[in-house]
Amino acid sequence: MRAVDIITSKRDGGVLDRAAIAAFVSGVTSGAWPDYQASALLMAILLRGMTAEETAALTTAIVDSGIRVDLGHIPGIKVDKHSTGGVGDKTSLILAPLVAACGVPVPMMSGRGLGHTGGTLDKLESIPGFRVGLSLDEMQRALARVGCAMIGQTKDIAPADKKLYALRDVTGTVESIPLISASIMSKKIAEGIDALVLDVKTGSGAFMKTDADSRRLAESLVAIGNASGVKTEAIITRMETPLGEAVGNALEVIECIEVLKGRGPADVIDVSLELAARMLVLGGVAADRAAAFAMCRATLASGAALDRFARIIEQQGGDPRIVDDYSRMPSVAQSVSMRAPRAGFLTRVDAELIGRASVALGAGRNRVEDTVDPAVGILVRRKPGDEIRQGETVLELFYRDDTALQAARPLAERAIVIGDAPFASRPMVLGEVH
Amino acid sequence: MRAVDIITSKRDGGVLDRAAIAAFVSGVTSGAWPDYQASALLMAILLRGMTAEETAALTTAIVDSGIRVDLGHIPGIKVDKHSTGGVGDKTSLILAPLVAACGVPVPMMSGRGLGHTGGTLDKLESIPGFRVGLSLDEMQRALARVGCAMIGQTKDIAPADKKLYALRDVTGTVESIPLISASIMSKKIAEGIDALVLDVKTGSGAFMKTDADSRRLAESLVAIGNASGVKTEAIITRMETPLGEAVGNALEVIECIEVLKGRGPADVIDVSLELAARMLVLGGVAADRAAAFAMCRATLASGAALDRFARIIEQQGGDPRIVDDYSRMPSVAQSVSMRAPRAGFLTRVDAELIGRASVALGAGRNRVEDTVDPAVGILVRRKPGDEIRQGETVLELFYRDDTALQAARPLAERAIVIGDAPFASRPMVLGEVH
Repeated sequence: MRAVDIITSKRDGGVLDRAAIAAFVSGVTSGAWPDYQASALLMAILLRGMTAEETAALTTAIVDSGIRVDLGHIPGIKVDKHSTGGVGDKTSLILAPLVAACGVPVPMMSGRGLGHTGGTLDKLESIPGFRVGLSLDEMQRALARVGCAMIGQTKDIAPADKKLYALRDVTGTVESIPLISASIMSKKIAEGIDALVLDVKTGSGAFMKTDADSRRLAESLVAIGNASGVKTEAIITRMETPLGEAVGNALEVIECIEVLKGRGPADVIDVSLELAARMLVLGGVAADRAAAFAMCRATLASGAALDRFARIIEQQGGDPRIVDDYSRMPSVAQSVSMRAPRAGFLTRVDAELIGRASVALGAGRNRVEDTVDPAVGILVRRKPGDEIRQGETVLELFYRDDTALQAARPLAERAIVIGDAPFASRPMVLGEVH
Repeated sequence: MRAVDIITSKRDGGVLDRAAIAAFVSGVTSGAWPDYQASALLMAILLRGMTAEETAALTTAIVDSGIRVDLGHIPGIKVDKHSTGGVGDKTSLILAPLVAACGVPVPMMSGRGLGHTGGTLDKLESIPGFRVGLSLDEMQRALARVGCAMIGQTKDIAPADKKLYALRDVTGTVESIPLISASIMSKKIAEGIDALVLDVKTGSGAFMKTDADSRRLAESLVAIGNASGVKTEAIITRMETPLGEAVGNALEVIECIEVLKGRGPADVIDVSLELAARMLVLGGVAADRAAAFAMCRATLASGAALDRFARIIEQQGGDPRIVDDYSRMPSVAQSVSMRAPRAGFLTRVDAELIGRASVALGAGRNRVEDTVDPAVGILVRRKPGDEIRQGETVLELFYRDDTALQAARPLAERAIVIGDAPFASRPMVLGEVH
């Protein structure tokens, strides 16, 4: 089948068969399909859509562009978690040690931050010495020893995804549920996991801005996972305001350690436990939700989850002493408080604007090739719904240089909206798909 | 404005402004826009459409990628004709000398055949010595001396169109009325003409298969022309069966000379006179349709049109003796008759299949780089509506080698449908847009 015939078929609203989709993906990987044909098809897919079968076939073809890791020799049901990304979205660092400490192996491949959203790898790398670039052998050794490995995507996992994403990024073809779904799920399926819990974020700081789009994405992801033999479920959680207080790499790691110590912000605990409990049930170590929640609380209370985090850090070359001594984490000397200009009720702390302010401070990337500053960031001291006094600190900005602060400050200012009426937040978890 | 923002805007159904469209076209021409971004935008345009204003802006931007010929120093209203292409579509060779002989200058830039449709340049080049590659200076000298020049598109005319078309051809983005319209009209506007008559073909042998699509294209073309200061009108003519009897380059030239001698097939005469009469009215030498038709008939009857064709041939380096001695035209010795397998009424002689059979014989091109054989082709001896006897010759195939004949024959056989009921053809001219 000629490339132009495949493009034309999708352009005219046709359904592509498995062979056509495989030809496209292998053509993109090998270079037999020039970029201009690939981008024309991507645009046709974005505008015409794909059926569930086409999306599953696309996912399979992307998986098949690389290796599928075999974790069969590691005992237990291997469970991972994936978030569609947000601001202050740090739950991986809590639930990975927590779930591993409960006896479920967690082989976790994560990404880096881009745009206003942060990335797990950047957060981990703020821990002195922590290596995310483990080989697949090292990953399996870590899994066997500490029940968890937190690494980046290796080159042999879904290489077609990397090519396709680079092309989508510059051709206006990112915002397609089938393309997003295949991209996310191909990497997860190739990891060799048995089950997956998804955290699909919704709101200004998320990729999906509306509940309806988030639900469509969650349904698409869950369908692909289950069709591919990976037991998959999803929750939809709020991301119109940053999760927790900390936004910025080292600041977020410290907040996670606080949660592992039984402290920390309520919203972070809520979402982390919801995800962890589902992982425990899928992992076969808890019979039901109630048992899973109880197991999570006990594992936090006993210090076993915190201890596991220290062991994971040590296993991956990091300095485990940071869990007891935050002064070993990178930090900056300078901070500035942003105060409420008037009394009232805090009605909004906009996640996207806080994320962009944090990038402006240097905590994130505008482009893939940018480097991040592990120490800078923002602490969100008050949350929507809070009653506040005039002059009270709402945000604290930790900065390294004045130019960056000048760029961040107006974004942070715009993020805050104060109203006169009391305001009740919706629950953190808005729905589930399984 | 970044390329990706322009692509995203069109993808989401937005209307691009003049600056965005100009950035796209100049980016494609200069190479600042990589092909993969251009093809993504082309697909978004195909699927989302363009307003009349956007299409006009696209046309202007393509014109501005090259020179706009100034024919101001040549007296008279310069009028050209353009056909959207068909099989046996030879009217240019009749109306150019006819209209020029009536005193209207005809600067005609034409194209080559591709796929099942023929091209005026290929037909002209079947005349021994005829040069279509005149420079713009030579073109203007020919216009001044014989009132007509029939040439190919020069490199400095609408270079962006050439790049865009090459990309559209391999990315499934040809079939878009705004893109087709801008491609056609940019070249015509850059020619420096004052008025234009369009022949929009409809049916199996045409680019547009339905009357409705043909009318939409005609309306789009006429709107662009008039918005750009070129008085433009269009007729919609039938192309479900080849026009006239001859399909193939030298065969068609001979048929045109027959028409200029007052003979030739009725359908060719109908369409040629309809187009020529409109050109005379637009050219200001006839007050109305009736006067224009009378002038055409008189100019054919007097031999002035035929004489003008001989002068045009001579002006462009060709052998004018061919008009009196067809043996000076290329020919092949071998022909084979395809006969009616049964008696009945001829209900179809499919234009596309006859066109493809003619290409198989060597008269046309499947790819731009193919060469054509001027001598081979097909004569369509009977037309739809004719009552025919069993064994009567319907088609005559003129071929050079047996392999080509074997490829052409099944296509030609499939082109013919014989039924039992009498059959009345629709008129050749189905409508007009002005």
